[in-house]
Amino acid sequence: MSFLKEYTFKTQGNTDIIDITPHLLEFIEEAGITEGIVSVFVRGSTGAISVIEYEPNLVKDFKEAMERIAPEDKDYHHHKTWGDYNGHSHIRASVVGCSETLPVSNGQPLLGQWQQLVLIDFDTGPRTRTVIMASSD
Amino acid sequence: MSFLKEYTFKTQGNTDIIDITPHLLEFIEEAGITEGIVSVFVRGSTGAISVIEYEPNLVKDFKEAMERIAPEDKDYHHHKTWGDYNGHSHIRASVVGCSETLPVSNGQPLLGQWQQLVLIDFDTGPRTRTVIMASSD
Amino acid sequence: MSFLKEYTFKTQGNTDIIDITPHLLEFIEEAGITEGIVSVFVRGSTGAISVIEYEPNLVKDFKEAMERIAPEDKDYHHHKTWGDYNGHSHIRASVVGCSETLPVSNGQPLLGQWQQLVLIDFDTGPRTRTVIMASSD
Repeated sequence: MSFLKEYTFKTQGNTDIIDITPHLLEFIEEAGITEGIVSVFVRGSTGAISVIEYEPNLVKDFKEAMERIAPEDKDYHHHKTWGDYNGHSHIRASVVGCSETLPVSNGQPLLGQWQQLVLIDFDTGPRTRTVIMASSD
Repeated sequence: MSFLKEYTFKTQGNTDIIDITPHLLEFIEEAGITEGIVSVFVRGSTGAISVIEYEPNLVKDFKEAMERIAPEDKDYHHHKTWGDYNGHSHIRASVVGCSETLPVSNGQPLLGQWQQLVLIDFDTGPRTRTVIMASSD
Repeated sequence: MSFLKEYTFKTQGNTDIIDITPHLLEFIEEAGITEGIVSVFVRGSTGAISVIEYEPNLVKDFKEAMERIAPEDKDYHHHKTWGDYNGHSHIRASVVGCSETLPVSNGQPLLGQWQQLVLIDFDTGPRTRTVIMASSD
């Protein structure tokens, strides 16, 4: 059986990283899952879903690592298509990925203590992001 | 309940990127899913599944980004094993990942407007690729 | 219906890569899945799950690629938080990802011949890692 819910988040862009673990806990409770999986997906091609130890210094490191993988100031071909200068955002999003699937047991996600579920907004400015959580049990 | 189907694609290699969103739509209809998830997986260790805005300039940017992450002309140790000179293909595939899981609601995938599901062939020449879609609802 | 099981592995850290395909086969048999999906997840923010051709030379290449993506000797901000000098481990883990979802048909995972499911430990020393497999069929 599947239960599905959408969440929206105000994001700031520029590799803004938001801890959405509280929403996962709320989702699991509302879905009433005891044993199963939850798939988490971000809508939008410049967003990503990942799991990270959510602490400010590592968040800084993550941003710097993304800058090495896809530098912001590069002259991306994509800029010729829409002129929105977010080529780096798209590349980073595809490398990190748009979904993760997490196990649930005894009504709790089996995340480690230092493992937070995060939404990442790689785009260049503020926007509203939609995350979809879907259970299967 | 689960429904599963295999699709084959003729790919050209060298980070060939194919929009397989039409097959996802077809799959969801055939599976008869209203609410649930679809997991998409590529068979083969030099292929990947991702989501990207599928437009020619970004596709070019993606190829260049992959070249920075795992350059083609590097002398990979793997070449000593089989002599097939696709070390870069394997590395790129593992970094991007072999699966994504997407939510479905009202019989439609909850993809963003600019978010296409793609099969990527990182190998060095043409081949036939198998993608498996599996639903859970 | 969902079936879920935890596996523990002794890992050495430093991008230690362990082939856990035998555990996947065992899991599928024990879960009694004929058609469906298995989601594989690693607990801990410095571990990752991926699929790779598991042969020693490619394993070496993968380690070198990770060193390019997030060098070990960089002075990460994260080191100021805990002093555990594993900033590179966290970045690599988030880039590779903590989960993959694999299809099963006729009681077998639909992996390619050269496609092994692996647990990667990016941390800096030996530890015990927990992997959770969860089926949905």
